[in-house]
Amino acid sequence: MTFELISMLSNYLETLRTTSHHTPVASMNLFVALLCACIVIGHLLEENRWMNESITSLFIGLGTGVFILLTTGGKSSHILVFSEDLFFIYLLPPIIFNAGFQVKKKHFFRNFMTIMLFGAVGTLISFGIISLGATHFFNRMNIGSLELSDYLAIGAIFSATDSVCTLQVLNQDETPLLYSLVFGEGVVNDATSVVLFNAIQKFDLSHINSSICLQFVGNFLYLFITSTALGVLAGLLSAYIIKTFYFGRHSTDREVALMILMAYFSYMLAELFNLSAILTVFFCGIVMSHYAWHNVTESSRVTTKHAFATLSFVSEIFIFLYVGMDALDIEKWQVVRDSPGTSVGVSSVLLALILIGRAAFVFPLSSLSNLTKKSLDEKIDLNQQITIWWAGLMRGAVSMALAYNQFTRSGHTQLHGNAMMITSTITVVLFSTVVFGLMTKPLVRLMLLSPKQCTTVTCSDPPSPKSHTFPLLINSHDSEAATGGRDLASPTSFQMFLATPTNTVHHYWRKFDDSFMRPVFGGRGFVPFVLRSPTDDNNHQWK
Amino acid sequence: MTFELISMLSNYLETLRTTSHHTPVASMNLFVALLCACIVIGHLLEENRWMNESITSLFIGLGTGVFILLTTGGKSSHILVFSEDLFFIYLLPPIIFNAGFQVKKKHFFRNFMTIMLFGAVGTLISFGIISLGATHFFNRMNIGSLELSDYLAIGAIFSATDSVCTLQVLNQDETPLLYSLVFGEGVVNDATSVVLFNAIQKFDLSHINSSICLQFVGNFLYLFITSTALGVLAGLLSAYIIKTFYFGRHSTDREVALMILMAYFSYMLAELFNLSAILTVFFCGIVMSHYAWHNVTESSRVTTKHAFATLSFVSEIFIFLYVGMDALDIEKWQVVRDSPGTSVGVSSVLLALILIGRAAFVFPLSSLSNLTKKSLDEKIDLNQQITIWWAGLMRGAVSMALAYNQFTRSGHTQLHGNAMMITSTITVVLFSTVVFGLMTKPLVRLMLLSPKQCTTVTCSDPPSPKSHTFPLLINSHDSEAATGGRDLASPTSFQMFLATPTNTVHHYWRKFDDSFMRPVFGGRGFVPFVLRSPTDDNNHQWK
Repeated sequence: MTFELISMLSNYLETLRTTSHHTPVASMNLFVALLCACIVIGHLLEENRWMNESITSLFIGLGTGVFILLTTGGKSSHILVFSEDLFFIYLLPPIIFNAGFQVKKKHFFRNFMTIMLFGAVGTLISFGIISLGATHFFNRMNIGSLELSDYLAIGAIFSATDSVCTLQVLNQDETPLLYSLVFGEGVVNDATSVVLFNAIQKFDLSHINSSICLQFVGNFLYLFITSTALGVLAGLLSAYIIKTFYFGRHSTDREVALMILMAYFSYMLAELFNLSAILTVFFCGIVMSHYAWHNVTESSRVTTKHAFATLSFVSEIFIFLYVGMDALDIEKWQVVRDSPGTSVGVSSVLLALILIGRAAFVFPLSSLSNLTKKSLDEKIDLNQQITIWWAGLMRGAVSMALAYNQFTRSGHTQLHGNAMMITSTITVVLFSTVVFGLMTKPLVRLMLLSPKQCTTVTCSDPPSPKSHTFPLLINSHDSEAATGGRDLASPTSFQMFLATPTNTVHHYWRKFDDSFMRPVFGGRGFVPFVLRSPTDDNNHQWK
Repeated sequence: MTFELISMLSNYLETLRTTSHHTPVASMNLFVALLCACIVIGHLLEENRWMNESITSLFIGLGTGVFILLTTGGKSSHILVFSEDLFFIYLLPPIIFNAGFQVKKKHFFRNFMTIMLFGAVGTLISFGIISLGATHFFNRMNIGSLELSDYLAIGAIFSATDSVCTLQVLNQDETPLLYSLVFGEGVVNDATSVVLFNAIQKFDLSHINSSICLQFVGNFLYLFITSTALGVLAGLLSAYIIKTFYFGRHSTDREVALMILMAYFSYMLAELFNLSAILTVFFCGIVMSHYAWHNVTESSRVTTKHAFATLSFVSEIFIFLYVGMDALDIEKWQVVRDSPGTSVGVSSVLLALILIGRAAFVFPLSSLSNLTKKSLDEKIDLNQQITIWWAGLMRGAVSMALAYNQFTRSGHTQLHGNAMMITSTITVVLFSTVVFGLMTKPLVRLMLLSPKQCTTVTCSDPPSPKSHTFPLLINSHDSEAATGGRDLASPTSFQMFLATPTNTVHHYWRKFDDSFMRPVFGGRGFVPFVLRSPTDDNNHQWK
């Protein structure tokens, strides 16, 4: 019986291998079935002390990879290979957009300075340390011809963190400061490393001089600013269209479709103009949730909120599954067989550099950030610093995608150095995700939560912040009052600015938002729902 | 200024043309932007007497096609060509699944016999007439070498109707019988013509004998039954998984993801085994909305309902946009330039055959159906028959996809007959969608609605039935009581069966459903929501 099943499956896999060039049907079947399995198994393991969805998917991917290898007799199969296009065009946009859409904007913007400090400056520090370290060690390890641009690319590749694991464990309501720092840093870090990587590929770095350095910095800032502006514009445009034509009058589907399409359009437009699409779609998400989301019908709100979260959730699982399956593509491991010692050495050096590179900015920058804060609530204590440090140790799909981009341009099996870097990247991603990832849940609980605070349900809540939106609908000026309350205590606005610059910026932003932005783009309080009576609301809310 | 804009656009299009083989970014940008435009313009034209979303999208697609042709100097562009894979793997599944998911099951199953009569028997009649007519006329028109299987394929291709235009005009609440007939026939018709088409391609029809005929019929029935069974199984499985593990406890996203993935899995599995994936995913949708949908949280219900409708909506627009753009791909029109007379002749013959082939079954089968009905409500009057006839005159993307499949296998520009059939299909699709489509709104209103009944808002409601689901949540046995009420009047179950067989089947099905199916698979009344108080519900429903 078991034997028959295996032989049936191996026949199926044979079809898969031979037909996958012509039709994607067979391999899509496999992927969809595995995604379902990941969801169900991930759910069943949710209360487990160590596991989370990412690691489950990674293991299922690895298991499938092993199974395919064994049944096809060790031949490399087409379905296993990581496709950069698939990742950057289809899987990443929903994740980043949802991140922007669901972020607690109040916390994000209140900690904006610290987040930028960690996400931009911190990533640059980490990039510098990893690049220097790699240059220093790899030159002596005889791993083939790597140029200066390769070393810089290695720095960018391994600066891109993957904080999904940690975010699944942290709770936005219990530790809002920490959550917004880890979350915000994750997004800005992704963007920074991709922008850095693109800048490295674009510039001829063989002859460095001050003018090229200046151009590099200028290019970096240009990308940062234009990408953000494009995202904000796309978000505002969608809010304006929905508000002006008031789609809800006729159809929820149109509103939802328009929001998704506009967000995707901003991402693709940024890709087309070689901007940082991650930043664009992130800010598009923030602006949409601030304006457009309040202009639509209630059922559109529920739908978009959950549909975006679902898309992001499925994409995340898909990525881990994919990374797991790709890891076992036999072709690229040939080089490791020839020199296993060097391979282990390279991976270990990279892991050590990641640990050091991250420590080198988290602790100093946290202290720097603490200097500017007055209240104890806003300071980052040592346990929180350790958590932030830990949260950014995992490396994920962004690193994979960048590594494939850099090291497969001339065929990754031909050049010894390239093959070595690809396999090392996979090793680092797998090791950090599995080993560091497995330790995250226990570590975070140890660092942050006393046992009685932490029931299984609250701790294992998924990262999407579910409770923050609807209570605000009831009284639209609650949060404003809370923010304003603090400001009233400060005597003059200049003193205020020196003491808590972000709060002041936030205060003026609210004023500007209320007077100029909301009347044009809508947002909380500018929709005709309030005109209906609550009874009426109950009857019509599902339409 | 205008000139600069055009030159900028034409540069962009040049990039599009030259890079579209390597990266889909540029063409995806164009498509996403056009989709947004279609939604906005479609919304603005909604109250227009003649237009609807399909025709708007078709015109926008045609306009873009013209623009691309003019700016690239008449060169054929890669982005214009219709891809069968894209259509059958990505665009069709959400449309058909949503159709099954949103159908009013009570009406659908009450009229099941009539729907099957129209959808299966009617399509076969239409197929026969078109095949015979094509054989008769095309043999004398010198359009190149067409074999018997080509003529049969033409019959199947032009039997596949596209009732989207009519469904956008009909109102499910005002004319439930007509809506369910047109809607149900549309789905069964799609499935029948695809199954027919596959059967034709599979069998060697050069030597017809009775054994091959029998095999053909057997194969047809086999496909019908196995496809339906697979869909029902997938739906039940998802309901069982969601009920057993009760995903809602932790996450709405998981439930939504699982429903989408299971539905897609059933579709892809049917494709893999060469079944009729359309039927599979349609029944999967029906079963899911009957069981799985009732097992999930309230926010999951809202989300799935609107997310599926949105997906379907976007796919529909995409298809019409695509058909519009593809129609102007210059390559395939070379043959028309050589013999414009024949081309017009072929298209006219096909249009005439479509009109006759449809009339040949709608009126006789309606009379047949009327014979079995007793109450005047359930009979199909002449105005309704004309509407049904009209509703199925449009030809759409399914015809296009089947035609491409049949006539491009040996390169559509090489063989005269093939090229002729492709262009004729495009002509028929465009003509029927635009001309018949434009006349649908006025005609349907003339046939069915008195002016005072028809306010703009109710008439232009999209086809998704929005009001039928939630009222049922309040009192779960309302509809059953309504159905049972009629049954009570009949004296014995045998007499009942003779009089109204479908009602009796429905009655026993309800009994079976309540006693065996619902306790296992969930469904209305088997979810622990009722345990919560209404106040509690209000607080938690958005979680």
